[in-house]
Amino acid sequence: MQFKFRIATKVFFGEGCLNKNKSEIAGFGKKSMIVTGRSSGKKSGALDDMTKALEELSIDYIIYDKIENNPSLENVADAGKIAREEKVDFIAGIGGGSPLDASKAVAVLAVNDIQPVELFNNAFDNRPLPIIAIPTTAGTGSEVTPYSILTRNDIKNKMSFGNDDIFPAVAFLDARYTESLPYSVTVDTAIDALSHAVEGYTNKRSTIMSDIFAVEAISVFGECLDNLLTNKIDYRIREKLLYMAMLGGMVISHTGTTIVHGLGYPLTYYKGIPHGRANGMLMAEYLKFNYEAIKDKTDNILRLLRVGSLDEFGKIMKKLVNTELSLSEDEITLFASTGAKHRSVAQNPRDIAVSDMVSILKNVFKVW
Amino acid sequence: MQFKFRIATKVFFGEGCLNKNKSEIAGFGKKSMIVTGRSSGKKSGALDDMTKALEELSIDYIIYDKIENNPSLENVADAGKIAREEKVDFIAGIGGGSPLDASKAVAVLAVNDIQPVELFNNAFDNRPLPIIAIPTTAGTGSEVTPYSILTRNDIKNKMSFGNDDIFPAVAFLDARYTESLPYSVTVDTAIDALSHAVEGYTNKRSTIMSDIFAVEAISVFGECLDNLLTNKIDYRIREKLLYMAMLGGMVISHTGTTIVHGLGYPLTYYKGIPHGRANGMLMAEYLKFNYEAIKDKTDNILRLLRVGSLDEFGKIMKKLVNTELSLSEDEITLFASTGAKHRSVAQNPRDIAVSDMVSILKNVFKVW
Repeated sequence: MQFKFRIATKVFFGEGCLNKNKSEIAGFGKKSMIVTGRSSGKKSGALDDMTKALEELSIDYIIYDKIENNPSLENVADAGKIAREEKVDFIAGIGGGSPLDASKAVAVLAVNDIQPVELFNNAFDNRPLPIIAIPTTAGTGSEVTPYSILTRNDIKNKMSFGNDDIFPAVAFLDARYTESLPYSVTVDTAIDALSHAVEGYTNKRSTIMSDIFAVEAISVFGECLDNLLTNKIDYRIREKLLYMAMLGGMVISHTGTTIVHGLGYPLTYYKGIPHGRANGMLMAEYLKFNYEAIKDKTDNILRLLRVGSLDEFGKIMKKLVNTELSLSEDEITLFASTGAKHRSVAQNPRDIAVSDMVSILKNVFKVW
Repeated sequence: MQFKFRIATKVFFGEGCLNKNKSEIAGFGKKSMIVTGRSSGKKSGALDDMTKALEELSIDYIIYDKIENNPSLENVADAGKIAREEKVDFIAGIGGGSPLDASKAVAVLAVNDIQPVELFNNAFDNRPLPIIAIPTTAGTGSEVTPYSILTRNDIKNKMSFGNDDIFPAVAFLDARYTESLPYSVTVDTAIDALSHAVEGYTNKRSTIMSDIFAVEAISVFGECLDNLLTNKIDYRIREKLLYMAMLGGMVISHTGTTIVHGLGYPLTYYKGIPHGRANGMLMAEYLKFNYEAIKDKTDNILRLLRVGSLDEFGKIMKKLVNTELSLSEDEITLFASTGAKHRSVAQNPRDIAVSDMVSILKNVFKVW
């Protein structure tokens, strides 16, 4: 038995948790930069709660609310420059995975005047600023991971950096902040969270500890599945989804993801498929391809989800993602070769070649 | 749903984990104090591994190897004074619960020139030194808790202090270090770990997250139960016990313990019953007393342990602890009133009065 266990984030979960525990923020300094998207922070109510907390604590703040979906290096460089110039003491990320991942890059760039592409070197002269994370979606789990996934327009793909120093110091998880999400975003992000649990559970880096979180996350997704399918998503379900997403983050913090993510990124970059939805399209085929190598675990996933077979699982995912997509032969070739460069390839349960990725994509998508 | 989740310790688990990951120690400073007992560090091999690692990293060290069983305030004050005078940068605790708990007190006293009794105030001018924890028993879980339990001779009892700052920064869990333990210590400490899981699972502060660890720990204890009963304890079982003990620590980090610990402390102080054994004597009666309030969870504990009833559980514990003890009426009165002062009383699943504690003790022990 060998494992490393590390979740550096202190998590507060529950209705009103930010206000109840705002004293946790007091020690981080006198000036904060809130890093958020154009609307998620405002719509969710999280931005108001955070600015109120900062004001009550007499902490100055500036708001950077221009984080893009799938934030680019240019985007985080812009925010990082302002944080550096404004000499902020800590970063508060509010939003879905995009603002949260961006806040980690900003925390590095705020104290390291480097080219943004150097983020991927994962070694910085100065320790990143402390990060507070407030998710407004239940998917990414970024609030408890040491990863930041950014879009590189230079290589037309997403790429991640990460080390223990960019674990958020504190995360406030309040399901009220997810109540304003439209149905499609709720579903896409929930699938992303499931995907983290499934990919972590099945990949070669899984440990006895990461499996505990994965099993719990998959089981909780199973409890929510009917509600997701029928759009009956009340506060109680939102809490479960937020909890499950956090667990998924704890899983991939230890295991990383798989080619589901590796093949999903180009679908997002080139075809605009939301990240979680892309994973949902690929997950069943990933499990089918690897079935012989991870039979017991796959059967357990189906049991936990109360789903009879991988085919049935595929059908359920198809219903949830509700998207038809056709790809050209050239796109298939490009996406497969992009997926083959993903760092998870070596962790796949069985050996996987580019030609296997082509097969997976062809099993999922219509080819024209 | 409301919870806080916090495990600040980075855990490395597995054979040779200290040597493989010794670079983790490098950042903590130039001089260390190793805090250990008279023999556990040496016998286990952990002390040799640690001094070798420190030498290879060119880190100076001093060794304080006079930590007592159930360390007293006077004992940790002595070590703390030396650490302060020697200006060490970090503390390495090696041993069972006694040296590990002591190392946390020493980490505080090394940078705070306070009366040792002020440890229980839980507020210190200077942040404790970083702590590295290397357990040589599989029981306490202290390597992943923010608690330090010390003996107060002035009030003739054990008492704990704790806050997030005394979580060990890094823990190295190598089951080889537990191989030299005699059978009785192996059993007593395993029962302590089970007790943490059971007490955390059943007490009012349990959360959805702490329950995940508790269920896993109880289940793993169940896998080891026959081996414990028959003294067939190979390396594989030792790994499971060490893993389970760590999980138990993660549970009580969130929940605290119960009156099992509260009533167990005077048994240790006055009658010399080893800590885990004291818990083992009391656990079945604790569960019986609270059964109506925690029926589902108690039934689940029995199911996870593959034990048919609470009576059977009591018999198994009795066989494991293998100790007859008679108490006088005066002792019963004293121990019950001591237990009633334990901070967990308010967290007991149902209201509990001193008279209930008397009943529990009388159900467990012969009275003369």
